[in-house]
Amino acid sequence: MTKDEALKIVKEQLTDHRYQHTIGVMDTAIRLAGRFRADPEKAMMAAIFHDYAKFRPKDEMKSIIIEQNLGEDLLRYGSELWHAPVGAYLVKKEAGIEDEEILLAIKSHTSGRPGMTILEKIIFLADYIEPGRHFPGVEDIRSTAEENLDNAVKQSLMNTITFLMKRNQLVYPETLHTFNDIVRQQGGKNE
Amino acid sequence: MTKDEALKIVKEQLTDHRYQHTIGVMDTAIRLAGRFRADPEKAMMAAIFHDYAKFRPKDEMKSIIIEQNLGEDLLRYGSELWHAPVGAYLVKKEAGIEDEEILLAIKSHTSGRPGMTILEKIIFLADYIEPGRHFPGVEDIRSTAEENLDNAVKQSLMNTITFLMKRNQLVYPETLHTFNDIVRQQGGKNE
Repeated sequence: MTKDEALKIVKEQLTDHRYQHTIGVMDTAIRLAGRFRADPEKAMMAAIFHDYAKFRPKDEMKSIIIEQNLGEDLLRYGSELWHAPVGAYLVKKEAGIEDEEILLAIKSHTSGRPGMTILEKIIFLADYIEPGRHFPGVEDIRSTAEENLDNAVKQSLMNTITFLMKRNQLVYPETLHTFNDIVRQQGGKNE
Repeated sequence: MTKDEALKIVKEQLTDHRYQHTIGVMDTAIRLAGRFRADPEKAMMAAIFHDYAKFRPKDEMKSIIIEQNLGEDLLRYGSELWHAPVGAYLVKKEAGIEDEEILLAIKSHTSGRPGMTILEKIIFLADYIEPGRHFPGVEDIRSTAEENLDNAVKQSLMNTITFLMKRNQLVYPETLHTFNDIVRQQGGKNE
């Protein structure tokens, strides 16, 4: 599938605003792939399709999560999380993307996952820092992303967790597990 | 056991500084018990004994956690957490405290626990806001504690999680589960 074909497919699924975001994620992911030695073609495709399921009805997402065993505990947390695993499923089914690395990067792009691959980290981070994102702290994370992928992902996870807690919203435990996983991998203090 | 007998027992286990902290927790817990209708006698005893195991050698705490099945996953997180469940065990064994409500409050006082009783929340909170505690945000939590126990516990959990993440330290998932549990009980947004 060419880049243009892929963009055409997702354009039909997204609002204009979300399509612009997708372009930002794509550009950012390609740049990060160059910086951190991931496959730029896979980074591009994962970025293009990362929000494929964003505007599916909640009921449809819920059914897919249950029927495809995507982790029913997700349903106990914010529906903002659902489009990521549902997207990975639908992108394979409807758009014919078979590459498991790409699908995994789509699947974990919102919550993170302990043991993320470099491609997963790149998509997770690109989604967080693409040029259309504006929130306190994003510039810091962009700077960190110039140098250290893990630190930038960790900062993003921390930001997300803090943001949700301040808004009195549930935090999906997988997001904390991902933070802990990176701290451990970096040999962080645990006592 | 009288208050003085209890204080005498813990004084032998603690540094002077930690003993003063214990007195602060005791005074705060008794006041909170009055405010939120818990048994002041139990609040007093739980507070007096909450840090009983604080200065036990790490090796001893580790062995007790394994042998008494106190949750081996604790060993993968900061040793700061260990004295709470180990304390509940030792207070029963060595000081003869049999009251399960008191023991539970000692056990969960550092990490929290989904489904905490009022007494557990009071000890958790008193430990966090006793007059000897000085850190950014403690005054806010003290004010909240004048009015709403759950909100004050939630703020303390959030503070702890944020503090640890900023210091690049592991966060025990039970602490996040406790936060989520209170958000859920309060009917917080989950989508």
